Amino acid sequence: MSAAWIDDVQWNADGLVPALAQDSESGEVLMLAWMNREALERTVESGEAVYWSRSRRCLWRKGETSGHVLRVKEIRLDCDADAILLRVESVAGIACHTGRRRCFFNRLEGEGAERRWAATDPVVGGSLANDA
Amino acid sequence: MSAAWIDDVQWNADGLVPALAQDSESGEVLMLAWMNREALERTVESGEAVYWSRSRRCLWRKGETSGHVLRVKEIRLDCDADAILLRVESVAGIACHTGRRRCFFNRLEGEGAERRWAATDPVVGGSLANDA
Repeated sequence: MSAAWIDDVQWNADGLVPALAQDSESGEVLMLAWMNREALERTVESGEAVYWSRSRRCLWRKGETSGHVLRVKEIRLDCDADAILLRVESVAGIACHTGRRRCFFNRLEGEGAERRWAATDPVVGGSLANDA
Repeated sequence: MSAAWIDDVQWNADGLVPALAQDSESGEVLMLAWMNREALERTVESGEAVYWSRSRRCLWRKGETSGHVLRVKEIRLDCDADAILLRVESVAGIACHTGRRRCFFNRLEGEGAERRWAATDPVVGGSLANDA
């Protein structure tokens, strides 16, 4: 299957685009992962986030082993057509493989030589080596 | 200047990371652009978003000609340290070079052969060929 809407996406040299997931209720940005054409097609067809794992080089249905599924409410594309925004329901309330609500749990804090990334969010569930 | 916090970032093969900007008040995801080390350092030092333009191959202080500055309230890093989230104040209320509040103004709508990206957001200000 190929369709105009999927050809509108500006895939990079590796055939990928970055895809953000945002909680559709809280507005919290949960994670950034990557999609190829098939991942985006499967996401649209299934209504659940499917990504391309760059490290494992395979399609990856988010939550397939962990149950931490992202149910897709809306799919958006940016002005340059090279980034995707999923508005999702995080079914288990955990999007990160570390067992946190979101992956963006490190905040830049301090000044000068004291500046560092500090983890601000608690672990609320079990962690997984890979975030399937 | 090199510091531990900036070495913690997992820069890609081109020395870049994707950086999201999210409105700190509304929670709206405004845009995704790219940063190299210098862009991130300048963002931290100036308190305003500075990116690396992949097309023009130069640093780009967001709003330097348009006035559409993004004032940075918080900087976050994800679990893999390869994506950045800026929580910002969009000073002019316009983040997109098309003159819209945000770049993610296209929504996937319809079914089957009718599926398409539909622009959902109004243009609220002047547009610019490049979104400086």
